Amino acid sequence: MEPMDLSCEEVDGLLDLADDIIARPQAYAHKCDGKKIATLFFEPSTRTRLSFEAAMLELGGSVLGFASADSSSATKGESIADTIRVVQCYADICAMRHPKEGAAKVASLYSNIPVINAGDGGHQHPTQTLTDLLTIRRLKGKIEDLTVGLCGDLKFGRTVHSLIKALTRYPHIRFVLISPQELRVPDYIREILEKEDIPFVEAERLEEVIEQLDVLYMTRVQRERFFNEEDYVRLRDSYILDMPKMELAKKDMIVLHPLPRVNEIDTEVDKDPRACYFKQVLFGKYARMALILKLLEVE
Amino acid sequence: MEPMDLSCEEVDGLLDLADDIIARPQAYAHKCDGKKIATLFFEPSTRTRLSFEAAMLELGGSVLGFASADSSSATKGESIADTIRVVQCYADICAMRHPKEGAAKVASLYSNIPVINAGDGGHQHPTQTLTDLLTIRRLKGKIEDLTVGLCGDLKFGRTVHSLIKALTRYPHIRFVLISPQELRVPDYIREILEKEDIPFVEAERLEEVIEQLDVLYMTRVQRERFFNEEDYVRLRDSYILDMPKMELAKKDMIVLHPLPRVNEIDTEVDKDPRACYFKQVLFGKYARMALILKLLEVE
Amino acid sequence: MEPMDLSCEEVDGLLDLADDIIARPQAYAHKCDGKKIATLFFEPSTRTRLSFEAAMLELGGSVLGFASADSSSATKGESIADTIRVVQCYADICAMRHPKEGAAKVASLYSNIPVINAGDGGHQHPTQTLTDLLTIRRLKGKIEDLTVGLCGDLKFGRTVHSLIKALTRYPHIRFVLISPQELRVPDYIREILEKEDIPFVEAERLEEVIEQLDVLYMTRVQRERFFNEEDYVRLRDSYILDMPKMELAKKDMIVLHPLPRVNEIDTEVDKDPRACYFKQVLFGKYARMALILKLLEVE
Repeated sequence: MEPMDLSCEEVDGLLDLADDIIARPQAYAHKCDGKKIATLFFEPSTRTRLSFEAAMLELGGSVLGFASADSSSATKGESIADTIRVVQCYADICAMRHPKEGAAKVASLYSNIPVINAGDGGHQHPTQTLTDLLTIRRLKGKIEDLTVGLCGDLKFGRTVHSLIKALTRYPHIRFVLISPQELRVPDYIREILEKEDIPFVEAERLEEVIEQLDVLYMTRVQRERFFNEEDYVRLRDSYILDMPKMELAKKDMIVLHPLPRVNEIDTEVDKDPRACYFKQVLFGKYARMALILKLLEVE
Repeated sequence: MEPMDLSCEEVDGLLDLADDIIARPQAYAHKCDGKKIATLFFEPSTRTRLSFEAAMLELGGSVLGFASADSSSATKGESIADTIRVVQCYADICAMRHPKEGAAKVASLYSNIPVINAGDGGHQHPTQTLTDLLTIRRLKGKIEDLTVGLCGDLKFGRTVHSLIKALTRYPHIRFVLISPQELRVPDYIREILEKEDIPFVEAERLEEVIEQLDVLYMTRVQRERFFNEEDYVRLRDSYILDMPKMELAKKDMIVLHPLPRVNEIDTEVDKDPRACYFKQVLFGKYARMALILKLLEVE
Repeated sequence: MEPMDLSCEEVDGLLDLADDIIARPQAYAHKCDGKKIATLFFEPSTRTRLSFEAAMLELGGSVLGFASADSSSATKGESIADTIRVVQCYADICAMRHPKEGAAKVASLYSNIPVINAGDGGHQHPTQTLTDLLTIRRLKGKIEDLTVGLCGDLKFGRTVHSLIKALTRYPHIRFVLISPQELRVPDYIREILEKEDIPFVEAERLEEVIEQLDVLYMTRVQRERFFNEEDYVRLRDSYILDMPKMELAKKDMIVLHPLPRVNEIDTEVDKDPRACYFKQVLFGKYARMALILKLLEVE
């Protein structure tokens, strides 16, 4: 299941369900009694794994699985197809993270239980996108008529690509794409935006555009992504969100980040009420609860 | 607890219990409420560990433990005896996998909770045998009057030895032992069969004997087990089950495999209804549920 | 939460609660239904982790977390502050073990859920102390008017320092501190005892003082702690508890050890009813149950 396999209505249905879970958690506390999720993490990702596990536990279900490939049979040369056919004997639903692109897709072809892609090679990561949409809708009250800034590494960050694609399905979104030249969004993203007539601008410095934004989605710029040291030194501070830049922003802008954060958001910013990246973590749990419920077809 | 410590009647009692769990899973969904299993895996074995964990969860119990020795106190030099005396404070039953032969046995001597051997050095693996017996009985309707072929590495595969020993206790079983010369069953197995007057033949090529079989139990032949490269090249295809060989077999033969499978069964075979190795995984869970119930003396 | 942050009354309240849990476990079996503990073990400690997990499960709650830093986001450079702000979205309480001194303290500053220090650099380990106090009170019927011997490495063992500090708050405790010269308690501990006028003697050989003791707390003396090989050879046997030394001791002395034990207590001693280190493990679970209940403010 990948969110973009879902129609806009289905995504909105999931967000509505997440809203209801947030409003009435007790009503969902036993929805998955007796159900099990298998968390198959062929590469470690504590945050994502714990989010799925918390989601299932808060629905009354239970958890089994592994946190890294070292402790899995993959090391014995087993195929993904065989692994999932074994795991489906043990669990009702599965969340899989795998370094190989398309691994969760392959698993789902052989599986008679739902397989959620919890990240694969190149960081396709659909539940992150669902999380981002839920967070925006909860905090801005809508997903429309918003100016959304995405800042940092827009070339390699699949989180960013998924979010842009998802947002193009909502009305009146404007994008501000903030990155160094060498880390601009790939052409195919730019083509989508142009074809759909979705307004966007590209900028090199966050401080020059931050005042326009309703949503600022931060990602990390890794030094090794720069072509030369000079550019890195000249630009690095533009991709670090700090209080002086926050001063320039709207009073109701929200700052998101997929985490983990290293230094691209100064910890001073954490105290600002516009810093919403930890709320985003909480919404991620609710988004996953909604997805689990839907995929298990629990009423 | 090792199955061969059990009488034939006790094993049959476990298989009957497993049948009843399969027929009425809801009746067992809370049998172990409030009970805990500790899965102590000093070496990783995801499949076996998850099977025990799923078994306990489906009985209403819960799970704690470790998936590899790295995260255990064994690295601090603690003895098995001390480990189990600690663990018995935390759990009601324990499944232990350990690289050292006899480790689970030692643990059981010091333990006041049941210790299930989930595999030890040389791959003694009693719950696999229970799984195999349950699978044969479920799919053939009986454990008697069957021609059972065992194919591959019959020398080092303890799974195979345990299964042969277990089957000798049932009436009218005939064995066809298919392996290269250097990987024939050990003498002590051949002596048991001769002493008990149990018919068996040995063969070098699967394709020459497959037509006789009611049950085909496949295992892997590792290249490094062969004495010389010539033999390996000459024989390797005889130990790979593929559709041409399946064409020669009975319409109601069943194919089993302890898994993980590498290439010794062609994935084409998976689609054949006689391929039962994934069903075997499911029966493994039920066999373990029965064993847990019996050892905890839950009514 | 560190026990010494607690008043004497609060500690006694915890011990009373643990007593009641031991007396009426069923009354507590659902106190934490729907609650979750996160066990964040940045360095492995199976015994401690399983103790917390068993404690939460016996209260009806559930568990998530990680057993070693390899499978955590820490490897991606995330700060403790960020980790705990993520984890508090997933769990109601957290037990953290970390190689860095003060890590749990830092986490608690950023957390809106209780953070239990499950050991940090230098082995501050407050729930061990709570365990030790509960064990003494259960087995001696009181924490007063006791001669407590601590034997082994008294210099580096924080478990020992914590226990001494905790015991100074109870009336009429006398200490016998048994260690080689180079592993005597640090000056600050000796100063506390002198300032509080608490009687203590220091000894170099266990066999010379064991007859005085009501409680003997053993710890390991590591060879590499000795300044020279001669001293090690001359003294090592004095720090190994064996049956000849037990013969010299009171009939109602109790022997404790924080475990894991390597060879500092001869396994022959295990059979002596005065050997209480495995009971201590069990009391550790109950101490943690009491602490979890108190911190979650569950009635």
